Amino acid sequence: MSEVMKKAAAAKAASVQMAMATTEKKNEALLAIADELTANQDEILAANKLDLDNLVRKKDYNKAFYDRLALSPERIAGMTEGVRQIAALPDPVGEVTGMWVRPNGLQIGQVRVPLGVIGIIYEARPNVTVDAAALALKAGNAVLLRGSSEAINSNIALVKCLQQALEKVGLPAGVISLIEDTERAAVQEMMRLNEYLDVLIPRGGANLIKTVTENASIPVIQTGTGVCHTFVDASADLEMAERIVFNAKTNRPGVCNAMETLLVHEKVADAFLPRILEKFFASGVEVRGCEKTCAYDERVKAAVDEDWSTEYLDLILAVKVVKSFAEAVSHINRYGTGHSEAIITTHYQRARDFQAQVDAAAVYVNASTRFTDGFEFGLGAEMGISTQKLHARGPMGLVALTSTKYIINGNGQIRS
Amino acid sequence: MSEVMKKAAAAKAASVQMAMATTEKKNEALLAIADELTANQDEILAANKLDLDNLVRKKDYNKAFYDRLALSPERIAGMTEGVRQIAALPDPVGEVTGMWVRPNGLQIGQVRVPLGVIGIIYEARPNVTVDAAALALKAGNAVLLRGSSEAINSNIALVKCLQQALEKVGLPAGVISLIEDTERAAVQEMMRLNEYLDVLIPRGGANLIKTVTENASIPVIQTGTGVCHTFVDASADLEMAERIVFNAKTNRPGVCNAMETLLVHEKVADAFLPRILEKFFASGVEVRGCEKTCAYDERVKAAVDEDWSTEYLDLILAVKVVKSFAEAVSHINRYGTGHSEAIITTHYQRARDFQAQVDAAAVYVNASTRFTDGFEFGLGAEMGISTQKLHARGPMGLVALTSTKYIINGNGQIRS
Repeated sequence: MSEVMKKAAAAKAASVQMAMATTEKKNEALLAIADELTANQDEILAANKLDLDNLVRKKDYNKAFYDRLALSPERIAGMTEGVRQIAALPDPVGEVTGMWVRPNGLQIGQVRVPLGVIGIIYEARPNVTVDAAALALKAGNAVLLRGSSEAINSNIALVKCLQQALEKVGLPAGVISLIEDTERAAVQEMMRLNEYLDVLIPRGGANLIKTVTENASIPVIQTGTGVCHTFVDASADLEMAERIVFNAKTNRPGVCNAMETLLVHEKVADAFLPRILEKFFASGVEVRGCEKTCAYDERVKAAVDEDWSTEYLDLILAVKVVKSFAEAVSHINRYGTGHSEAIITTHYQRARDFQAQVDAAAVYVNASTRFTDGFEFGLGAEMGISTQKLHARGPMGLVALTSTKYIINGNGQIRS
Repeated sequence: MSEVMKKAAAAKAASVQMAMATTEKKNEALLAIADELTANQDEILAANKLDLDNLVRKKDYNKAFYDRLALSPERIAGMTEGVRQIAALPDPVGEVTGMWVRPNGLQIGQVRVPLGVIGIIYEARPNVTVDAAALALKAGNAVLLRGSSEAINSNIALVKCLQQALEKVGLPAGVISLIEDTERAAVQEMMRLNEYLDVLIPRGGANLIKTVTENASIPVIQTGTGVCHTFVDASADLEMAERIVFNAKTNRPGVCNAMETLLVHEKVADAFLPRILEKFFASGVEVRGCEKTCAYDERVKAAVDEDWSTEYLDLILAVKVVKSFAEAVSHINRYGTGHSEAIITTHYQRARDFQAQVDAAAVYVNASTRFTDGFEFGLGAEMGISTQKLHARGPMGLVALTSTKYIINGNGQIRS
């Protein structure tokens, strides 16, 4: 039996026990995890150093990649703080979301239950190991983790702590396992283990998500590439527009809820564009514009068709002047990825129409797209941002990691 | 451009219009559909006769298959009645399922929206054409239908009526389309059109569902194979058990919520088994039992391992005597398909434990598994019974055909 199959089977068995675990027991486990991470900080950092040394040896790495992989005492403290916060959240499992009685006397209720076994496939961010495991555990699930090879030593050290914590509180180690086989075949195998896994959540870039969606036979929750737009309507308060647009692009350009394309109604282009372009150039933002945009400033590069569908994740912005509200909506629905879209307007009906007509997980009026986030939405946690329409859409908190089950109480009913 | 791609693109375009359609308009379309089906009854029956004649010519068909394919004035009346009932149901679209204000003043709401384009892949049941299209339409979706080749003439005639009705009320014909290409390649293409389809629902037997799950890159909702169990606990009211168990097996053996395996606690086997076996044999039920069951009646055939995981969909029943509640639960969780499971008991704690520990869409105490059905549960309609844990679990009504979207109302909020 392969490592993947063995660990998946153990996760399945552990998930049965987890589904019965009380909130008290799960919180005990989370607090034990936080303690183990703190107690084993040196060991974790030493393992992380191995990964970082291996990366540096390869020479073709980039700084951002190194940063994501690197752990530090502060980052470990951040992880443990995150785990403690998850312990403090309400437990979604067991909530009866509805209960009614049928004419024949059957009482039918719907109750939240864990999903079962969640597979997480992710990239070289060791914090995802702890974060995803803690969220899955709180919602009563077992988790099978597959991080990238670059983080393997860090992940092994982290999962060792997590499993020690489980053992201390008397939960099976199978609740959290890591696939240590870093070959691609192991992921392929994992993606088709319908017998043991209930859902797969890929966390990472567009390529990872595409590979998983196309190859998995297990249900997948697609998380977040974001080609997010902000549309400055003809009726916009232009000072508000300037603040919001600048924030949406520059506050943290490397994340999925950052704005990638700015759409400006032609009626306010003269008044708005020169000002905001100046501000962007002053902050080192590269601007790729449509013909009309280019005419405002010679520093604007001419956008090509590909720009409209690119998630830059960088200080680059596409800008297009549109003739109408309808053109803005149709551009967004064509090139957007269904993540976060915003309109800046003072017009009541256009605000409503934008929220009705734009097909995305989060549709904003007069605010920055940067708020699409489980914490900012008040969900208390986040497993990622779903850009699909099935099961969960938008930021996924603990509820997104549960399913439901019908419970039916009878007193002898038979069907005629 | 292939037929599949062309129709999928048209469905996508139509879905944008559908998402804006008022409840009034959608109901108008449904009532027009009912009228068209009635008005074109002769044409539909003539097309159906072509399909039936083609089937009979093949010679290797079976009667149940013929029955499912056959239409009649009564069946058409049943379809139109179903469509009118769907028109009378409340519209799930637009419901705000929650709305709250964050400390920074952002108002965040979650609103029900259509899924978009639903692909339905099904077998030779022409009624599914009308039923699935009507449900999808009511929930504001466009639908791309792919029935089996044996029903192609019936389906073409039915979809013609549906499209005429759409035209009469001013909705685009693309809201309901049928793939007329009956080659297998057309289904393969349909299953990977992520650009246009939001979800696939296969409706049919285990093989169809397996093929779709394994080959689709679009999110799939798995519907219903049911290896359903009833466990007669040591504390059961045996008269109630007899009524329920007999109903669950014989009321309609060909459907997914029928019982396939009976588990009996050894403490009541002497008192219960001879009686119920007699009753089953008197009704022509074939019984395949464990060693202990065989000892009660020589007409019982010895069950082989495969029997425990077989969905007979017929007057055949597997029977096993178990030593304990725990053995019953573990048998069910091992061999069940997560559909419908029942316990017959008078014991309070075992009733609760069964509902907590059995991992299935519907878990019954003291009632027949035959009630797992959208109408019986009070959902007013049914698109199938989901046996997966993502998105929808159990009978799927209109709400299961919707997604949600976050709408965020601000007044200039930016993220710091």
